[in-house]
Amino acid sequence: MKRNQTVFFKNKPTILAGYSIVGPKESKSVFADYFDYKLKSDFFGEKSFEKAERKILEHAIFGAFDKAGINPNEVQALISGDLLNQIISSSFAARQFDASFIGLFGACSTMAESLALGACLVDGGFFEKLICATSSHFSSAERQFRFPLELGNQRPPTSQWTVTGAGATILSSKGKGPKITCATFGKVMDYGIKDVNNMGAAMAPAAASTLKAHFDETNSKPEDYDLIVTGDLGKLGSEILLDLLEDENIKLGTNYNDCGQMIFDKNEKAFMGGSGAGCSAVILNSYIMKKLLTGEFKKILFVATGALLSTLSSQQGDSIPAIAHAVEIESDKGGEK
Amino acid sequence: MKRNQTVFFKNKPTILAGYSIVGPKESKSVFADYFDYKLKSDFFGEKSFEKAERKILEHAIFGAFDKAGINPNEVQALISGDLLNQIISSSFAARQFDASFIGLFGACSTMAESLALGACLVDGGFFEKLICATSSHFSSAERQFRFPLELGNQRPPTSQWTVTGAGATILSSKGKGPKITCATFGKVMDYGIKDVNNMGAAMAPAAASTLKAHFDETNSKPEDYDLIVTGDLGKLGSEILLDLLEDENIKLGTNYNDCGQMIFDKNEKAFMGGSGAGCSAVILNSYIMKKLLTGEFKKILFVATGALLSTLSSQQGDSIPAIAHAVEIESDKGGEK
Repeated sequence: MKRNQTVFFKNKPTILAGYSIVGPKESKSVFADYFDYKLKSDFFGEKSFEKAERKILEHAIFGAFDKAGINPNEVQALISGDLLNQIISSSFAARQFDASFIGLFGACSTMAESLALGACLVDGGFFEKLICATSSHFSSAERQFRFPLELGNQRPPTSQWTVTGAGATILSSKGKGPKITCATFGKVMDYGIKDVNNMGAAMAPAAASTLKAHFDETNSKPEDYDLIVTGDLGKLGSEILLDLLEDENIKLGTNYNDCGQMIFDKNEKAFMGGSGAGCSAVILNSYIMKKLLTGEFKKILFVATGALLSTLSSQQGDSIPAIAHAVEIESDKGGEK
Repeated sequence: MKRNQTVFFKNKPTILAGYSIVGPKESKSVFADYFDYKLKSDFFGEKSFEKAERKILEHAIFGAFDKAGINPNEVQALISGDLLNQIISSSFAARQFDASFIGLFGACSTMAESLALGACLVDGGFFEKLICATSSHFSSAERQFRFPLELGNQRPPTSQWTVTGAGATILSSKGKGPKITCATFGKVMDYGIKDVNNMGAAMAPAAASTLKAHFDETNSKPEDYDLIVTGDLGKLGSEILLDLLEDENIKLGTNYNDCGQMIFDKNEKAFMGGSGAGCSAVILNSYIMKKLLTGEFKKILFVATGALLSTLSSQQGDSIPAIAHAVEIESDKGGEK
């Protein structure tokens, strides 16, 4: 039996809408014009960062419904996860939405994991419409995974900056919009990296493994895509990925980019770039979705990466396992590339 | 459009094997004879409770492969989650298994969530064989969610005891064994319970909601099942469930039980009973699976429940959202009931 990681969608689930909301720092991104909603304060009127993150996620979910012009009652399930312990942003946001909830944990790979699973559930005829979503918040992540902000700890140069933001994508068995054609579920890879301030290095092998499996199993090559985008290896991780793939005789060209690299400007002191489940979620559901809608991108490969550590696993001396899931999306505008 | 929570499986995915491993306390359960492996020490030769939990989960996964008599290479994906922050038991265990990993978080509902999703992935033709698994460990959960054991805190009478154990179930598109016929994905319910020592009360409304949706959407009634089993409401939660369902004119009879109530004997100082993702996982993959294999149970409904809180959400004054997913399993022995 062929041991596939890639699943193919006969009915190609449609993306009815993608919605993005970002924090104040992200609002200065070069992609700022593409985001649907830009927060002036990362508290979003709430009393804690965690409650703010939850509200950001809720806003993304209901924003997507509005953008698609559909009633939330038409959508049968929410597939969501986030970085906070016990994915409280997702579970608590799900209270606002009277439908089935499927909770995931894939760290920063969540947007791809939810889309891959969601596409299976729609393509298999189990649900007609569902919504995939994820979020992250710099300040809630920082104090959970690293240090309280009040300490003012210095950030090492290999560190990345957790994006404050959320993205949501509505999948449907019919309708107009970009189509999900196939998805590759990643394996957990662990190259022994223990430096929690170097997530890019920990995650690059997972991205390489998933990309190799994807190209092999779909008989495709990097040139077939207008964009291959990882999220969020950052600058260093992306370079490692290119090296690892070269060892496999796979050469990514100028059509490759990384959401972590893309989102922050060089002047924004984000070092290696953005991270967090929200990072790839907001880039996918803004800039990339727009280009798929106009047909400027005919076919893209979205490869969100996640570092599967906890503070406790690091404290116990463990290395950082990582995963990457890939989702192939085609525009419904213009001819096939 | 009908807003269904229940998905039906045309090809009825087969359970090739279920495997259970439990800790020393659970080894004294009245179900002890049904468990595949009973630990003498809850450290399982490891230096921390968390590493022990991971090893227990790995043991369950590979134990299931052995029991089914299949090579791990035949199985294409692991669907798993657990209670620890960032589901480290699952993510780290996945390193040992060279296949796709789909990480979930559903707290103590994880066994049902993974089976429901896994059945969709097999029934939809996306994977031929996959394994669903989850674990919990009394001592890792206790120090993460409550207090360090060394403090010797007194337990309130409404509390439950986290089961040390793991269960794993192999699903396949063909072969002999019990069949998953349909599944109901739950909604997040929150009745405002804030007492973290009364999870049963927090979770009962979710179980009631899912059971009602299941009976409505499948046109079934409680008498159609040889066993309807929630996991893990405990004694108090089960009583609340019966009350809530009576308000909906649904009367569960003597065919109803709860994994939390079942696993511990009255003498074991577990108060309201067992809990933890491992609780329902080990009861399903031992006693229930055995009775399905012999045909003594023709049809059962497995409704695992999860409390979706974190220590931080409680510290911030939030109530406890909960969820329950239901999975219907039929024996392939004897006639239909």
